[in-house]
Amino acid sequence: MVINNPKTKNHSPVRTVFFVSDRTGITAEALGNSLLTQFEGVTFNKIHLSFIDTSKKAENCVKQINEACIKDSNPALIFSTQIDEKYRDMMAKSNGVFFDFFETFISRMEDSLGSKSIHTAGKLHGLDSNQNYNSRINSVNFSLASDDGMSIKSFDRADIILIGVSRSGKTPTCLFMALQYGIKASNYPLIEQDLNTDKLPSILRPFKDKLFGLTINPVRLKKIRGERRSSSDYSSLKQCQSEVRRAEDIYHSNKIPYIDTTQISIEEITAKISNKFSLR
Amino acid sequence: MVINNPKTKNHSPVRTVFFVSDRTGITAEALGNSLLTQFEGVTFNKIHLSFIDTSKKAENCVKQINEACIKDSNPALIFSTQIDEKYRDMMAKSNGVFFDFFETFISRMEDSLGSKSIHTAGKLHGLDSNQNYNSRINSVNFSLASDDGMSIKSFDRADIILIGVSRSGKTPTCLFMALQYGIKASNYPLIEQDLNTDKLPSILRPFKDKLFGLTINPVRLKKIRGERRSSSDYSSLKQCQSEVRRAEDIYHSNKIPYIDTTQISIEEITAKISNKFSLR
Repeated sequence: MVINNPKTKNHSPVRTVFFVSDRTGITAEALGNSLLTQFEGVTFNKIHLSFIDTSKKAENCVKQINEACIKDSNPALIFSTQIDEKYRDMMAKSNGVFFDFFETFISRMEDSLGSKSIHTAGKLHGLDSNQNYNSRINSVNFSLASDDGMSIKSFDRADIILIGVSRSGKTPTCLFMALQYGIKASNYPLIEQDLNTDKLPSILRPFKDKLFGLTINPVRLKKIRGERRSSSDYSSLKQCQSEVRRAEDIYHSNKIPYIDTTQISIEEITAKISNKFSLR
Repeated sequence: MVINNPKTKNHSPVRTVFFVSDRTGITAEALGNSLLTQFEGVTFNKIHLSFIDTSKKAENCVKQINEACIKDSNPALIFSTQIDEKYRDMMAKSNGVFFDFFETFISRMEDSLGSKSIHTAGKLHGLDSNQNYNSRINSVNFSLASDDGMSIKSFDRADIILIGVSRSGKTPTCLFMALQYGIKASNYPLIEQDLNTDKLPSILRPFKDKLFGLTINPVRLKKIRGERRSSSDYSSLKQCQSEVRRAEDIYHSNKIPYIDTTQISIEEITAKISNKFSLR
């Protein structure tokens, strides 16, 4: 199919999207995907072009972009955090629509800060320049070592201790907190013997100010547990209802802040807990 | 201190930066931090304002922004993915410099896609709309269950199997791959008995096409191991050198692709492996 002007818009339901970066492309993806979620009824075919740091690689990108424009009979969208001006210019001259996440803001920032930008790629997700990198990796190791109450000795070093019944979302949340922000998060599972009273387990009492409870809809919990052990008491609705109710009783009786994880993501849980405890 | 026009630029070394969002603020942070890394010699005091979804919260943000402008004798920088126009307008009228990551691009996208954006917050890091969410959480659980070769039965279900000597970065990389992209990543530690030959451990042979090796500078490895067990053979330079050399021999002999993790972050390792295996 030959088209004369691929920049002409067309209501085709499939569009190719390129995330282009000198380095990992994580930032281009984050904002690009965020913007794409604002458009429904279009299928986006996403292509990640990372480490585009030579003319040859940039030329190859332009080729892929132009081919996609022809294939879709519509201009591709290009979300770029590319810092090197030469490669940016090449993309901008392609047949796609170029969204420049770097240049769009950098000159106003230079103006406001009264200094020139260094125009160096790979500063955000690189190792040397990321002061928090070691803290993030150490926090991941910390979370793993203290997962599921395995090392209660770690509680005094924890920034936060998540508590909740089995499979309420503690572990993935702890790991996300560690990986994303270097937060040292431990967790403690509330098991049957803890749930037989509304008193806080004695082991947790010295750390009351660090505790944050997770709860979850029992029907959802039954589904999650059933994926592992479908025909056991553990994943019966009755058991799930009972555990969740008693865990919430503990939170109320001991004034432990808590959140229902049924409808929210680990990103949202983390943001809410960070706000509550001023962890950042 | 009273200043008449906080928008006047000034070469002060401390500037307050606000990341403002209707939801988690992760996207505002990603691009904002990426742009900030382009400016050296300035200390940025970063404040995260997430879940700004009421007029009262937005008013409070504006108050904080204006106070920071006075305190710094310089305009604060505001990086925003705020979608609600009303709140965006409030921020834009503050005394800070407003960088609007949403509105700046959305109208060109509407034009290019030939449809209106839905202007709905929380689509990216929310639960319902994130089709990959369950896959990400399942992959985290998969990685944990199969960490350090604990469940070799999982290798047939893995998208990728990272191999390397102890503490070469396998586990944090697997977890990042799972959390960020829903990649099912297992790992297998090369221990003494594996390193005594340059043949691939028999357990890995059926999965040769999924293997990716990590290596690391022995001096760096010694340092990492020493943080846990400082006076053992395990963290001696001689042992680290020997293990790394023999692991690399295995990679070469068996044509296993590998990467040196000494100078790169888990984000960079992940991006390179994803490219290599077309995992995304």
